[in-house]
Amino acid sequence: MNAIEELKKEFSEITRLNYIRALLGWDEQVNLPKGSFGARAEQNALMSKIVHERLISDKIGKLIKEAEKLTDLNLIDSATLREAKREYELEVKLPTELVEEISKTSSHGYIKWVEAREKNDFSIFQPLLEKLIGLKIQVAEKLDTHPDPYSTLIDLYEPGATYDWIANIFNKSKQNLNHIIKKLNVSSDKPDFSILTQKWNVDKQWDFSMEVIKGLNYDLNKGRQDKSVHPFTTSLSSSDTRFTTRIDEDFFSPCIFGSIHECGHALYEMGFMESIHDSVLADGVSMGIHESQSRIWENMVGRSMEFWKYWYPILKNSFPNNLKDKSINDFYRSVNTVQPSLIRVEADEVTYGMHIILRFELEKDIIEGNVRVSELPELWNEQMENLLGITPPTNSDGVLQDVHWSRGSFGYFPTYFLGNLYGAQFYNTALKQYPSLPNDYEDGNFSNLLAFLRDNIHQYGRIYHARDLVKRVTGEELNPNYFIEYLEKKFYPIYNV
Amino acid sequence: MNAIEELKKEFSEITRLNYIRALLGWDEQVNLPKGSFGARAEQNALMSKIVHERLISDKIGKLIKEAEKLTDLNLIDSATLREAKREYELEVKLPTELVEEISKTSSHGYIKWVEAREKNDFSIFQPLLEKLIGLKIQVAEKLDTHPDPYSTLIDLYEPGATYDWIANIFNKSKQNLNHIIKKLNVSSDKPDFSILTQKWNVDKQWDFSMEVIKGLNYDLNKGRQDKSVHPFTTSLSSSDTRFTTRIDEDFFSPCIFGSIHECGHALYEMGFMESIHDSVLADGVSMGIHESQSRIWENMVGRSMEFWKYWYPILKNSFPNNLKDKSINDFYRSVNTVQPSLIRVEADEVTYGMHIILRFELEKDIIEGNVRVSELPELWNEQMENLLGITPPTNSDGVLQDVHWSRGSFGYFPTYFLGNLYGAQFYNTALKQYPSLPNDYEDGNFSNLLAFLRDNIHQYGRIYHARDLVKRVTGEELNPNYFIEYLEKKFYPIYNV
Repeated sequence: MNAIEELKKEFSEITRLNYIRALLGWDEQVNLPKGSFGARAEQNALMSKIVHERLISDKIGKLIKEAEKLTDLNLIDSATLREAKREYELEVKLPTELVEEISKTSSHGYIKWVEAREKNDFSIFQPLLEKLIGLKIQVAEKLDTHPDPYSTLIDLYEPGATYDWIANIFNKSKQNLNHIIKKLNVSSDKPDFSILTQKWNVDKQWDFSMEVIKGLNYDLNKGRQDKSVHPFTTSLSSSDTRFTTRIDEDFFSPCIFGSIHECGHALYEMGFMESIHDSVLADGVSMGIHESQSRIWENMVGRSMEFWKYWYPILKNSFPNNLKDKSINDFYRSVNTVQPSLIRVEADEVTYGMHIILRFELEKDIIEGNVRVSELPELWNEQMENLLGITPPTNSDGVLQDVHWSRGSFGYFPTYFLGNLYGAQFYNTALKQYPSLPNDYEDGNFSNLLAFLRDNIHQYGRIYHARDLVKRVTGEELNPNYFIEYLEKKFYPIYNV
Repeated sequence: MNAIEELKKEFSEITRLNYIRALLGWDEQVNLPKGSFGARAEQNALMSKIVHERLISDKIGKLIKEAEKLTDLNLIDSATLREAKREYELEVKLPTELVEEISKTSSHGYIKWVEAREKNDFSIFQPLLEKLIGLKIQVAEKLDTHPDPYSTLIDLYEPGATYDWIANIFNKSKQNLNHIIKKLNVSSDKPDFSILTQKWNVDKQWDFSMEVIKGLNYDLNKGRQDKSVHPFTTSLSSSDTRFTTRIDEDFFSPCIFGSIHECGHALYEMGFMESIHDSVLADGVSMGIHESQSRIWENMVGRSMEFWKYWYPILKNSFPNNLKDKSINDFYRSVNTVQPSLIRVEADEVTYGMHIILRFELEKDIIEGNVRVSELPELWNEQMENLLGITPPTNSDGVLQDVHWSRGSFGYFPTYFLGNLYGAQFYNTALKQYPSLPNDYEDGNFSNLLAFLRDNIHQYGRIYHARDLVKRVTGEELNPNYFIEYLEKKFYPIYNV
């Protein structure tokens, strides 16, 4: 065995250990009895320690050095070396004490964030947030992959992306989104959102979501759907990718669009080519690319007229009273209602980006020390007014709404909007190559779109960098205009403007 | 830290890793998608390897030697040393190749057993069974804890027990059981078993079982009940003991008595004193003692008249049609029907022991080489005729009915019957100390019995050896007469003999 083969062997065990960690996490959110969280936290910590010790072992360091001397590596081998080195360096550059301090502080931070949110009192969370930011700045200094610390943090979630690159894309998008929002706002023919906020039997919602994901070619032989408070997707092996949804009796959207969204994530992870199974390459290439897959299925497919031409009659069969006298067009328009709202996770396709841009700019200023943590609530509210024309009545509906910062995740948010942009660009290419794709949906056939995504994106896992992948698939760098064009083409007719 | 403290620290991590293995196993039986068994098997093997490597490490060997030099160890420390040494020696004495060979052969053996059972063709399984027996004889030779190999294998499941000791107890029991079976057989007033074989709504069965286990003080904050093909109990941490049951629409008994049985196992593991949590002592002292706890709850409590005085009205409320015109006495008698049957897992309290005695004697003869594997089907049927007066019409209903041998588990079976015997003796002591216990059941109060079991048995985990524990709790060695007396006192009135 040469060094690259040995490296693969080491990482196949590390990957399996990570799958086992994923099972601990999945079970925690789906099944864990309330009284067992403490013990589970200890198990998580133990498995993290075992993986950490393996990653930073002299053996891996030596194998990477030896492998770097090899020439003529093929595509998979050179990607393996690149990603193995990345994983290794992330672990060795960060002192164990710093990692433990962050882990402890974010556990504590999460508790304080929950309390602050419940009591609508930012000052409860503020000291922990200050401490976490300080620690993450230390992380950026230790890793030092980019000249500015925020780019270094972004790189953890979106390898290869920088603040400047994203800021340029987001700034262009902001103006365009603004334009669309204003135009839709003045429409005198808005969708009837109240269709969605009737009583929706939870068992029937569940059954419908199961039918839909089967229709989307989610393979229940290699995965399962469950319920959890926060929907998520996770792979527990190369043949076991599970996801969850949540059901709200008073609101139709969370269950079905949660299912489709997570199903999109799952289809990505189920599509890795067999030769990278159980390897360091068996993962999404970036959070943004991952999100593009969920958004394509949730929005471009799941909120399209063609999709509902097939599914609406089936849905109506399950909910005859709720949908009595509602035409497919009424329903289609209701699931595509655009309205500036306070909470990111409930935002529509058009206004969603504004929520992200707000966070992205605030994160930059916090990490660079341009604003103080104590100023965040005020700045948040100002920006909400600027970007969406509404001011949160409370901090719980404003700066305290998202869990991410309490976990120390700075640099994660921008990947959500990047996901929308990547998604639109991929989908545009798919439609150019297969213009009849949406017609397939009307027949309940979603396999041609899946085949396109598998062939062009899924199978490669982490073989290509995100930006290279976009270029390979679409012929150009990430271009936010595709998303804007998609929105205009879709929403102007819905709003009759 | 002295050696014993260090040893405890090492074993607390090993225990946590074993809990993580248990999660892999629980998930496999409760949730795993069909297409993921191969990947899960690899994960199991990886975790086994990690635990094995930790157990046989020089560090542990050295700590044990050092700890053995310490004097004046307290109860917990000396038990810790004893059990740590036992675990260590079991691992170091067995060559890795032998362990792997057994693991592979039993995986293969399981598949062949399933096939042989489906096709009712013992010859499909025979070569694998021969190989497995050969391998287990090698295990006995390597471990060499007793002069005869079968005792060495028994010791793996029932530490301290030997073939001779068990044979003596079983022989006494056999005659007595025979006597009872004959007496019940000639009764002209037998229970009406058909009450149980109506259609029983599966959702209502489930709900009833949930009510009952809550009534038995199973803490759903530290555990959960699920469904699986084969009911089982497993601990995933010191605060997470889960179990499963199975539901048969055409037969009332499996769900409720499965639930109560497994709940009994779970209550045991949930009752370990806090100072042995996450330690090598946090386990059942033996399979027989474990089984005693499940049998006390399933049979002595769950099939008692006092139990049903409380639960029958509640059950009748859920199943008014099934139980219309059935008195509590009809129902009580039906769940205590005694009839020689082919299948061990469906056997009643009286005939159950005969199934075990048959296996125990055959195992002895196989391991000692007194009979050939090819002779097993014939010998099985002969013994069924001798012990229970019935002959299996097929090998699938005979020698092929149990999974244990396909997994290489020789020496496990006797612990089932030992469990019944231990259980009766413990319960006898409980009743002597608290004669009014059964009256509590009539009020739905099961906490006094649980308190007795916790105080005397559960809290100690593996601190005392099984035989010592029995003596401590009941004042004498295991005495099968308590079980026989219990059966006579209970079943003669039911059968009016």
